[in-house]
Amino acid sequence: MTPIAERVDHACLIVHGPDQSGLVAPIAALVTRNGGNVVSLDQYSSNPEGGDFFQRVVFHRPGLQAALPQIESDLEATLGPLALTWRLTDQSMPKRMAILASTSDHCLLELLWRHRRGELPVEIPMVISNHTTTAEDVRGFGIPFLHVPSRGPDKSEAEAKILELVRGNVDFLVLARYMQILSDDFLRQVEVPVINIHHSFLPAFIGAAPYRRAHERGVKLIGATSHYVTKDLDEGPIIEQDVARVDHSMTAADLQARGAYVERAVLSRAVQWHAEDRVIRHGNHNIVFA
Amino acid sequence: MTPIAERVDHACLIVHGPDQSGLVAPIAALVTRNGGNVVSLDQYSSNPEGGDFFQRVVFHRPGLQAALPQIESDLEATLGPLALTWRLTDQSMPKRMAILASTSDHCLLELLWRHRRGELPVEIPMVISNHTTTAEDVRGFGIPFLHVPSRGPDKSEAEAKILELVRGNVDFLVLARYMQILSDDFLRQVEVPVINIHHSFLPAFIGAAPYRRAHERGVKLIGATSHYVTKDLDEGPIIEQDVARVDHSMTAADLQARGAYVERAVLSRAVQWHAEDRVIRHGNHNIVFA
Amino acid sequence: MTPIAERVDHACLIVHGPDQSGLVAPIAALVTRNGGNVVSLDQYSSNPEGGDFFQRVVFHRPGLQAALPQIESDLEATLGPLALTWRLTDQSMPKRMAILASTSDHCLLELLWRHRRGELPVEIPMVISNHTTTAEDVRGFGIPFLHVPSRGPDKSEAEAKILELVRGNVDFLVLARYMQILSDDFLRQVEVPVINIHHSFLPAFIGAAPYRRAHERGVKLIGATSHYVTKDLDEGPIIEQDVARVDHSMTAADLQARGAYVERAVLSRAVQWHAEDRVIRHGNHNIVFA
Amino acid sequence: MTPIAERVDHACLIVHGPDQSGLVAPIAALVTRNGGNVVSLDQYSSNPEGGDFFQRVVFHRPGLQAALPQIESDLEATLGPLALTWRLTDQSMPKRMAILASTSDHCLLELLWRHRRGELPVEIPMVISNHTTTAEDVRGFGIPFLHVPSRGPDKSEAEAKILELVRGNVDFLVLARYMQILSDDFLRQVEVPVINIHHSFLPAFIGAAPYRRAHERGVKLIGATSHYVTKDLDEGPIIEQDVARVDHSMTAADLQARGAYVERAVLSRAVQWHAEDRVIRHGNHNIVFA
Repeated sequence: MTPIAERVDHACLIVHGPDQSGLVAPIAALVTRNGGNVVSLDQYSSNPEGGDFFQRVVFHRPGLQAALPQIESDLEATLGPLALTWRLTDQSMPKRMAILASTSDHCLLELLWRHRRGELPVEIPMVISNHTTTAEDVRGFGIPFLHVPSRGPDKSEAEAKILELVRGNVDFLVLARYMQILSDDFLRQVEVPVINIHHSFLPAFIGAAPYRRAHERGVKLIGATSHYVTKDLDEGPIIEQDVARVDHSMTAADLQARGAYVERAVLSRAVQWHAEDRVIRHGNHNIVFA
Repeated sequence: MTPIAERVDHACLIVHGPDQSGLVAPIAALVTRNGGNVVSLDQYSSNPEGGDFFQRVVFHRPGLQAALPQIESDLEATLGPLALTWRLTDQSMPKRMAILASTSDHCLLELLWRHRRGELPVEIPMVISNHTTTAEDVRGFGIPFLHVPSRGPDKSEAEAKILELVRGNVDFLVLARYMQILSDDFLRQVEVPVINIHHSFLPAFIGAAPYRRAHERGVKLIGATSHYVTKDLDEGPIIEQDVARVDHSMTAADLQARGAYVERAVLSRAVQWHAEDRVIRHGNHNIVFA
Repeated sequence: MTPIAERVDHACLIVHGPDQSGLVAPIAALVTRNGGNVVSLDQYSSNPEGGDFFQRVVFHRPGLQAALPQIESDLEATLGPLALTWRLTDQSMPKRMAILASTSDHCLLELLWRHRRGELPVEIPMVISNHTTTAEDVRGFGIPFLHVPSRGPDKSEAEAKILELVRGNVDFLVLARYMQILSDDFLRQVEVPVINIHHSFLPAFIGAAPYRRAHERGVKLIGATSHYVTKDLDEGPIIEQDVARVDHSMTAADLQARGAYVERAVLSRAVQWHAEDRVIRHGNHNIVFA
Repeated sequence: MTPIAERVDHACLIVHGPDQSGLVAPIAALVTRNGGNVVSLDQYSSNPEGGDFFQRVVFHRPGLQAALPQIESDLEATLGPLALTWRLTDQSMPKRMAILASTSDHCLLELLWRHRRGELPVEIPMVISNHTTTAEDVRGFGIPFLHVPSRGPDKSEAEAKILELVRGNVDFLVLARYMQILSDDFLRQVEVPVINIHHSFLPAFIGAAPYRRAHERGVKLIGATSHYVTKDLDEGPIIEQDVARVDHSMTAADLQARGAYVERAVLSRAVQWHAEDRVIRHGNHNIVFA
């Protein structure tokens, strides 16, 4: 939640690969010899013997921007031989995030509002919706709103249009209750991470109408799940989940109304953590240094 | 949580049936004309037009025990013509609860300890286990411990033994992490409600090894569910659920250790609410006036 | 959360006074003989012997509006002799709520947004602020925004202006992080309930700068409290409270940012419950039938 | 929660002192050159410029015990010149913890039970109580129970007796609802940390009878706080806090019964974190790497 202004000269380094003895020291030494001071460091080994190693380091380095190429060369030279992959980001550069929405406004407006408060380190070059219901609200936040209708069973035209809009222009996509299933083709071609919010506590109620089914089952808690989208519907790696208490007196519509508050909170946290480089994908799991 | 001693002369009346206009008044009038004063009243209509009506009334009536037969006659005469079914219990009479357990002690000991503190309005005539590991602990609470082994695929002998022990002696059974699946035959013959604790947030992870599967799926919350046992495994009506937060650094064993605390809390609440006549079964749902 | 449209012909009756045997029956009978069908009923006795009695009944009565005068006469005749006070409201008539705000937008916008979603049974005839920062947002919701500056130590002019605006026009006032202390005179003259949100878990951190003091004390949870305003600052009867987890790495500014989400949720619930007649004041306590 | 058996050859190193650029690297290098592999690492800087630096490193080092003296010399030589203080502990050596109790059993039994499950990395050489009510339970866990009565206003004799029992024999003391206030003299002489559980959400309801006062104030949540004991009653640095929801229908006794479950959970977490060297005291704050 550090404001962008305070992130000047701060870099985030993500490292992962096969664990072995003594990985932390050379990485820390690299930061030091490049003039950086470690501000925070998170580290996780799935197994000290033969497991995987994950590290996130935020460091302060006066004059960061000019020094980036040299730090990157050093990373390549130092971590390559250790079979480690890495990613270095300037924390003062907001990620570019496009939002896809349909008619629901609760997740969409929450993201726009948190962005305006300076709590999400992102730029929002566009909101794309297959409906026009939220256009006025979105434009009220000074964000471009683009209408890409998607009727009928063939979604290829709409997907092509979206691809054209986002490719090269955004670093990740957020589905803020976008009620269309994206094709495998789209996911392959978009080439950036896609974050979704599912309106149930996955893996309970995979698929359509989770609130109706939660009501039928008589659950005492409802939930929401934010995950990266993969070609297997509702099966992608989970970033965040939360729940709210419900009772017998509530209808399926009541569950849906209550659930909206869980959805917007869960999606907001997932987006923030992704934008702050706190989420490392590992197979169908996420390491979340939150 | 009212101590048994303070429940003397308190009755609990449960009424349910088809809703219609004006049901609350005759029930309240009945309580009044039988010398009772309403202490608490919960009411729920699934639909004011053509739905079902559920009511729980606790009333204070000096000299309750002697008056019960007359109150029951009055209930029969008053509610019968309205097609309502009812259940009247003397709140100072603890329900008799048998516990079935295996090797885990966390749910079992929590129930015994809450009972000793006077927080569960039950008597515990016996704990039955297919293992002997918890025998000493159970007897330390002054509760009879009975060992009924259950080896091999044929459970009929063990089930027959348990039936013999509990039939006529208990008002309900609690499976405190009892690791045997009870047969349909057993459930038919036992003729009292059976409460189970499942170590997942149902309907997620129905069946075996939920913590291992939760770990594989990479969930961010684990849960527990207490429900009435029906012939469909893990599908019975839910009484209570809760969750705890977990993260990527935890192993399946860590989830299990953390989950144990959710299980004992959820089962304890379910048992307490059942024992206090706060749970009304309605198809595969429960109305819980907690 | 029932939509206003579905509340047509629904009345809410609040009754309280000295408890005695047999109060529920005559009230239920009264509802029945006036053509009503009880939809929900909550009842609480502070003590079955010599305590206070509180009841909230929602009932459905076709043609409610025309029948109100007769029901009120019946209430007067029936409950007067029992020393009970009562309040009858038509649930399809939204309460009129004015909001007072300063520069913070999080509580204010949350209320406006929930209102637009149809989740708060209120009308909002005006938002009054001593700053103009939120004017555009408020007007974007189609709500009148009025600027009443309040500079210098003498607040009497500002208070007089506010009184003029709200008196007779609203049923209650909400202070959505209004950063001015209202005088005793104002509270006496405004003659409607005033709901405040305090940014701490009262009674911890009464007074100014609670997040700074929470940070200094090193607490592990921060909270928010919504209460009715009385002449004793931060001492009025509590409607709702909640908390969020914080840790050592967070600055006072971080606590404030995290706390904003607790504040908006707590205030929204308090406003909803008040608007739905679920809160009964009793000395410095509230009975909340939520 | 790692079992003691799996902690063989694992060391925990705590470092703190004035922050400066490049502290992480020499510490990591030190671990590596002494044959250790970092298993987990937590780091916190109160301010990257001129603040304080805190680090907790757990590392695996085959043959740890024999290597400890040499690692300690290296730490002295490396960290001394940087003005950093450090603490190195063998994670397979449980800390020795004495428990002081009075009549309540809930916190006491929870600690003994978690210890038996292997979830607390401690040895419990003794439980000391000023009452005998829990003697049988404690001995049932195979733990020595010592009765040190403490009647009348002069506590010096009881305190002297306790000092005699614990000095040199324990690494820390836990007050599990011990209802005597320890003198400044005792705290000075005992020379080990003392952990207390206070039955309120501090700083609300400092002092006696917090549940009664919480009831009078009409709060909607009750809490518990575990903290290190200092000479200023209820003012010591907070380790952990949590809350539970309550409502208007609950008596002060109900709050106390509900609160007992919060108390035992909060104290257990605080004890576990302390025993695992996850808590670093810093003035009147705690850095908790949980």
